[in-house]
Amino acid sequence: MRTIDWDTDASAVVIVDQTRLPGCLEFVSLSDVDALVDAIRRLAVRGAPALGVAGALGVALAVVEAGRHRSADPVGHVRLRAEQVRASRPTAVNLGWGVDRALARLDGVDSFPEVIRAAIALIDEDIAVNRALSIRGADLLIELTGLPSLAIQTHCNAGGLACVEWGTALGVVRALHERGAVREVFADETRPLLQGSRITAFELSRMGVRHRVVVDGAGPTVIARGMVDAVVVGADRVCANGDVVNKVGTYPLALAAARAGIPFVVAAPESTIDDATARGDDVHIEVRAADEVTSMNGVANAPAGTDAWNPAFDVTPADLVTAIVTELRVVRPPS
Amino acid sequence: MRTIDWDTDASAVVIVDQTRLPGCLEFVSLSDVDALVDAIRRLAVRGAPALGVAGALGVALAVVEAGRHRSADPVGHVRLRAEQVRASRPTAVNLGWGVDRALARLDGVDSFPEVIRAAIALIDEDIAVNRALSIRGADLLIELTGLPSLAIQTHCNAGGLACVEWGTALGVVRALHERGAVREVFADETRPLLQGSRITAFELSRMGVRHRVVVDGAGPTVIARGMVDAVVVGADRVCANGDVVNKVGTYPLALAAARAGIPFVVAAPESTIDDATARGDDVHIEVRAADEVTSMNGVANAPAGTDAWNPAFDVTPADLVTAIVTELRVVRPPS
Repeated sequence: MRTIDWDTDASAVVIVDQTRLPGCLEFVSLSDVDALVDAIRRLAVRGAPALGVAGALGVALAVVEAGRHRSADPVGHVRLRAEQVRASRPTAVNLGWGVDRALARLDGVDSFPEVIRAAIALIDEDIAVNRALSIRGADLLIELTGLPSLAIQTHCNAGGLACVEWGTALGVVRALHERGAVREVFADETRPLLQGSRITAFELSRMGVRHRVVVDGAGPTVIARGMVDAVVVGADRVCANGDVVNKVGTYPLALAAARAGIPFVVAAPESTIDDATARGDDVHIEVRAADEVTSMNGVANAPAGTDAWNPAFDVTPADLVTAIVTELRVVRPPS
Repeated sequence: MRTIDWDTDASAVVIVDQTRLPGCLEFVSLSDVDALVDAIRRLAVRGAPALGVAGALGVALAVVEAGRHRSADPVGHVRLRAEQVRASRPTAVNLGWGVDRALARLDGVDSFPEVIRAAIALIDEDIAVNRALSIRGADLLIELTGLPSLAIQTHCNAGGLACVEWGTALGVVRALHERGAVREVFADETRPLLQGSRITAFELSRMGVRHRVVVDGAGPTVIARGMVDAVVVGADRVCANGDVVNKVGTYPLALAAARAGIPFVVAAPESTIDDATARGDDVHIEVRAADEVTSMNGVANAPAGTDAWNPAFDVTPADLVTAIVTELRVVRPPS
């Protein structure tokens, strides 16, 4: 099952609408850039690697639009729409990376078919990249812990649904599970949007991995009580100094892992590494609407008028990160 | 407004049903021990100091029952029912403390009026105790930070609704606010039961203190970004070595405060200090039902059949605690 794909017949992007999970596995066809940008903003498509592919396919949609509308300035149209895709979420570096991968092939109207081909090629590339980093991550965890079978704490969703098919942090779990080396996974529920209880639990159940959900505040206690052997998470951006930007609630797990002396491993493709950003403090952290926090399932959680601060991400300083695993290498900060 | 009180005319306990807040401020009359035990279990009455008063008033209800039922062994009835009250929640030390305060006056049927008087006296005592510790806590925070006005991070609800009237952690905020020394309070929402967004936000709004709610995973980021000057929380039990047992999600704030170098202050009455328990590892931590995590407002958050681990409390090791403030003293662990 692919989270995001290209429908060649319809010249459209097809996604699993992740806001409907786990109640409903719904595929949605997005036939223009506006529909894709809306899907990115409302997190119907989410996860750093999937956003990379979405960025590239957004440029492909812009190319299709330019032809469909008989645009007077088709190349200008594609460039304009590409920037709208890039701006749809500010923190994930992969989104812009995907846009740029497709734009790199843009050289006049004659290049349009090649732009679309390059965008589509990222789909298979993402699957191969995630598989490679997952195997590398599984090897590393067995090496770091010296254990034949592990219990793992994770946060948010860095599984197949965050990517095209295979997953990063949950890809590592999948690779370990294929070796019979997963005892249990503890998944933080990941407020406010509950990607952990909705999506990670859904994926772990499909994989057949034993798992329990915990509230985010309990993740550090799972670690402190020795219930897990390692923490494995994905990343939305890795800075040049090794600081890791990931879903808010990741940083407390890193603090707890450091105190407990267990590995804190980040599984992320090379496209997540942003050498142009020196450190976490330099990253623009997306702050989302207060009502994601103050209401749930349409019911208010807080008195009317209560304000909330709702950052989507946090920064884990490099000194708390044991290793960053990509498809090409294992980086141990500081390095 | 008193969270818990004794209705002399009806010989009943009257509580604010905290599960109905903030939508509805409902007072409920509990006329026997079964009704009180049920209210404690479903957290209609909650908060360590309020549970101390509830424990004592539970013994008063048992005395009333013994008379009402013309019990053959009235003293035996009171002792039996007292143990049912004590067992209704296992982690809060105050509950048993309150039971014991009332039982200490039990000496035959002739002592029954005195048992009831002793239980009722705890109501006024709780208010006086909380006021004293709040003023001491406010003095301490100004001394520790050297600031004329503070931004404070808190977790769960240790306000008037967790006590009889005044509050512990929020009592400190109240005492600071009376001096014009509160810039803002950040309140963790406190999953799974959202005491922060439901109850703390309600109390802060009534006090007129500027506040914002954050998801529990974002509390450590509020601290790391320098948005608060101190963390102030209550406690359900303080062990002899200074380890603090409080609502799950407290420990990550202590880790973040230590790293940021800001004070982590616990405001709790002497009745919370349990010299009989050496350290946090020795405390029985209440684990509650999984469906508190996997569903909300009657809607499932996770795939059907998903298991959750739902500890109600966590342990903050003494070395992360800057100070514990009671009505009598400031303790700085280790000491």
